[in-house]
Amino acid sequence: MVLLVAYSAWVYPFEVAFLSSYPKKPLYIADSLVDLFFATDIVLTFFVAYIDHTTHLLVRDSKKIAMRYLSTWFLMDVASTIPFEAFYYLFTGKAKITLSCYLLGMLRFWRLRRVKQFFTRLEKDIRFSYFWVRCARLISVTLLLVHCAGCLYYLLAELYPHQGKTWIGSLIPNYRETSLWIRYISALYWSITTMTTVGYGDLHAVNTMEMIFIIFYMLFNLGLTAYLIGNMTNLVVEGTRRTMEFRNSI
Amino acid sequence: MVLLVAYSAWVYPFEVAFLSSYPKKPLYIADSLVDLFFATDIVLTFFVAYIDHTTHLLVRDSKKIAMRYLSTWFLMDVASTIPFEAFYYLFTGKAKITLSCYLLGMLRFWRLRRVKQFFTRLEKDIRFSYFWVRCARLISVTLLLVHCAGCLYYLLAELYPHQGKTWIGSLIPNYRETSLWIRYISALYWSITTMTTVGYGDLHAVNTMEMIFIIFYMLFNLGLTAYLIGNMTNLVVEGTRRTMEFRNSI
Amino acid sequence: MVLLVAYSAWVYPFEVAFLSSYPKKPLYIADSLVDLFFATDIVLTFFVAYIDHTTHLLVRDSKKIAMRYLSTWFLMDVASTIPFEAFYYLFTGKAKITLSCYLLGMLRFWRLRRVKQFFTRLEKDIRFSYFWVRCARLISVTLLLVHCAGCLYYLLAELYPHQGKTWIGSLIPNYRETSLWIRYISALYWSITTMTTVGYGDLHAVNTMEMIFIIFYMLFNLGLTAYLIGNMTNLVVEGTRRTMEFRNSI
Amino acid sequence: MVLLVAYSAWVYPFEVAFLSSYPKKPLYIADSLVDLFFATDIVLTFFVAYIDHTTHLLVRDSKKIAMRYLSTWFLMDVASTIPFEAFYYLFTGKAKITLSCYLLGMLRFWRLRRVKQFFTRLEKDIRFSYFWVRCARLISVTLLLVHCAGCLYYLLAELYPHQGKTWIGSLIPNYRETSLWIRYISALYWSITTMTTVGYGDLHAVNTMEMIFIIFYMLFNLGLTAYLIGNMTNLVVEGTRRTMEFRNSI
Ligand SMILES: [K+]
Ligand SMILES: [K+]
Repeated sequence: MVLLVAYSAWVYPFEVAFLSSYPKKPLYIADSLVDLFFATDIVLTFFVAYIDHTTHLLVRDSKKIAMRYLSTWFLMDVASTIPFEAFYYLFTGKAKITLSCYLLGMLRFWRLRRVKQFFTRLEKDIRFSYFWVRCARLISVTLLLVHCAGCLYYLLAELYPHQGKTWIGSLIPNYRETSLWIRYISALYWSITTMTTVGYGDLHAVNTMEMIFIIFYMLFNLGLTAYLIGNMTNLVVEGTRRTMEFRNSI
Repeated sequence: MVLLVAYSAWVYPFEVAFLSSYPKKPLYIADSLVDLFFATDIVLTFFVAYIDHTTHLLVRDSKKIAMRYLSTWFLMDVASTIPFEAFYYLFTGKAKITLSCYLLGMLRFWRLRRVKQFFTRLEKDIRFSYFWVRCARLISVTLLLVHCAGCLYYLLAELYPHQGKTWIGSLIPNYRETSLWIRYISALYWSITTMTTVGYGDLHAVNTMEMIFIIFYMLFNLGLTAYLIGNMTNLVVEGTRRTMEFRNSI
Repeated sequence: MVLLVAYSAWVYPFEVAFLSSYPKKPLYIADSLVDLFFATDIVLTFFVAYIDHTTHLLVRDSKKIAMRYLSTWFLMDVASTIPFEAFYYLFTGKAKITLSCYLLGMLRFWRLRRVKQFFTRLEKDIRFSYFWVRCARLISVTLLLVHCAGCLYYLLAELYPHQGKTWIGSLIPNYRETSLWIRYISALYWSITTMTTVGYGDLHAVNTMEMIFIIFYMLFNLGLTAYLIGNMTNLVVEGTRRTMEFRNSI
Repeated sequence: MVLLVAYSAWVYPFEVAFLSSYPKKPLYIADSLVDLFFATDIVLTFFVAYIDHTTHLLVRDSKKIAMRYLSTWFLMDVASTIPFEAFYYLFTGKAKITLSCYLLGMLRFWRLRRVKQFFTRLEKDIRFSYFWVRCARLISVTLLLVHCAGCLYYLLAELYPHQGKTWIGSLIPNYRETSLWIRYISALYWSITTMTTVGYGDLHAVNTMEMIFIIFYMLFNLGLTAYLIGNMTNLVVEGTRRTMEFRNSI
């Protein structure tokens, strides 16, 4: 389940940025399967009992279950499952996807709520080391953001009218002919170089659109880095507490 | 109120750096309106009752109110509201603004005291999440500083006698003919690239004046970054305390 | 003992990366001596009494000692001591070392377990300052990682078929003819420039393989830097506690 | 007193790096005066009463004072005051200063012990804000290190036999003819760019000597940055404690 969500969150930005001009049969089938899985999950939720927060009793009444789900996350869950692209194709007969379609597709990130819930439950589970669960959570968030930023940055270059005046075009003049792999790694490389504040400068903003994107990305990273360091400090303090207490007790 | 202060603190460095050679009718009228608003505010303060810190009683006596205000912030409030530029124009008849005028205009930053008070009050308000109030405060400070640094850095290039030997001139030879938007985004891009310590190096100091400016800016940033991380650590420790206590209690 | 482990962990990546095409007599003899020493250490462990964790008694029974050692680290200790390279040479008669040999050689890093134990014991020892022991530990870890990353990065350039399209080849065209010292310092310089997130950009990734390596290295560094800062914060809090308590007590 | 120490610590690296080939009359006289002042201070220490740590009584006995001083810091104080350069000049008659002279001159940094004592006393003084005293201390340390690193880095370029293959020579070919001011600012600019991990890359290592110097400088900075952030976190936690307690008490 969590893996499917991760797949869906990882593959969507990639598709939008890199595959918009490709015939993408195999990935499209995989996507449809994942969407189908989430649709089944929505249906199943109507039949799964839940524990009431106030009475601490298991509620089996299907009406109450339905009422609870419909009044909370049902709408968002459905919205994030509808294959808007397929509908668009059916109604208009055109394969070209528009901006509104992209925005509706971003509803899929709603599914990440489940991953968040999963990690929160794991953190409270005494069987797992808090240190490693927290680390895994932070690494997942970082990797997802790096991936999204890389895809978006590539999309900016793809959409820019003048090929040569883009970050990748100024380095590899005919980059649209190079393999998908090289382009993806370059975008990811830039993304991580900026995220970790190394900033080699071999891939930097060339036009104003890219500058604006980087400004927001860097501001966001400043917060993320501070958050990561804050978490690590917290974990280190917890981790060395036992040794400190042992020393102070002597 | 807070928004007006933010506007006034944001627009002033921008005007000085980018608009010094433009006819700036619309912005000038907006500025005058804001100044008028603050003047009204000063007058109003004389009629607003306050709570005495020692007796915890509401003081309505207008004399006492006036005495208290005059002895505390009145002078600075007035100084930050006087439109020195208009006076200068009236007395000398010249539209060109001198350095002393700029320095007097910097008194407007005094108004930021109100934003600080606003945030301090919000932090103590139990209805708002401490985490988000603190984050908003830190982000505001960061954004304002980034904006000011960008404007100052552009001003340095503008004032330098030799156009080609400036940070922007070495990249865009005829930068003074490009649009205001490109120049502002470039300055902001440099400012954030340096602030977040990414430092791509595509826009770097060229002459000695810029080097000196960057030296001070970076030293200042070192402190600011440490302060941001310190705050974030504090917030993370607070945020995860409940989960930690839950784990330790088992 | 600890020094020998450090030597062995330091020299192995260096050998693999820089000396694969050299006749390396003197280092080979030193390596064999160190391996011999560790083999002796394994034998000695069978005759050294240990303190039982549950009864707190010294166990002198050689059978019990052997049982305990065989069931815990014996296998790994032996595996990390076997000179696979020599065996390979004996069986095949070829001096060229293959990838599988390199991977088996990496078992030597298992010896670092002892250094970890050594530092953990030191941290609990009240005679030494916790601050300096912890600093020494963190510095050792950092230096070892910087060294390994530098060697690996050089190895990537060495293995790449097209000499000119490597990080070092794009700077020094005929780098394979330059002295070992210059190449090692260059690799180390790149490694530390990236680790500390300075990122001058004079030595950056050129081909896709290097980009992938840097992506992982930077992600890893992000965690390491956060860990270092977390530890430092912890130490500073401990260090200034006495002064703080003195101030608060007044 | 503290100011004189600061002057002496600031001026010494500057002299060694930048003025070794200049006739330096005025600075030499100032140095001599400062040295004279410290010599007087040593003599005075023999007549200043001290408080005994065990009995908490003021000791006025001049014999005891002398004994205490002679057995503690007297030797180092004297060593850091002797004008080795002048002696060298007297004995050999040559104005050229050798490496051993430089090393002996470094004893002047011993005087910084007094500044450390001064700040430690200030931190314990309840009349001053702990936050600002600590900040001032950290800023002083940072500035001194940045200055020393800049001077050393310039010295490396100065001593390198091939002018063009130095960090400054690859940017300004005939740098030895440019003004002292430009060279000093360039060195300081590089030093702070590296220290704050911005690393624009416009001034980077060119030869192996510089690489080695930067490797050590960056490793040292990693520790310093972590230390600064650790201190800041500590201060922020202290600073926001009152607000947090107020919120938790409601
Ligand atoms: K950087
Ligand atoms: K950089």
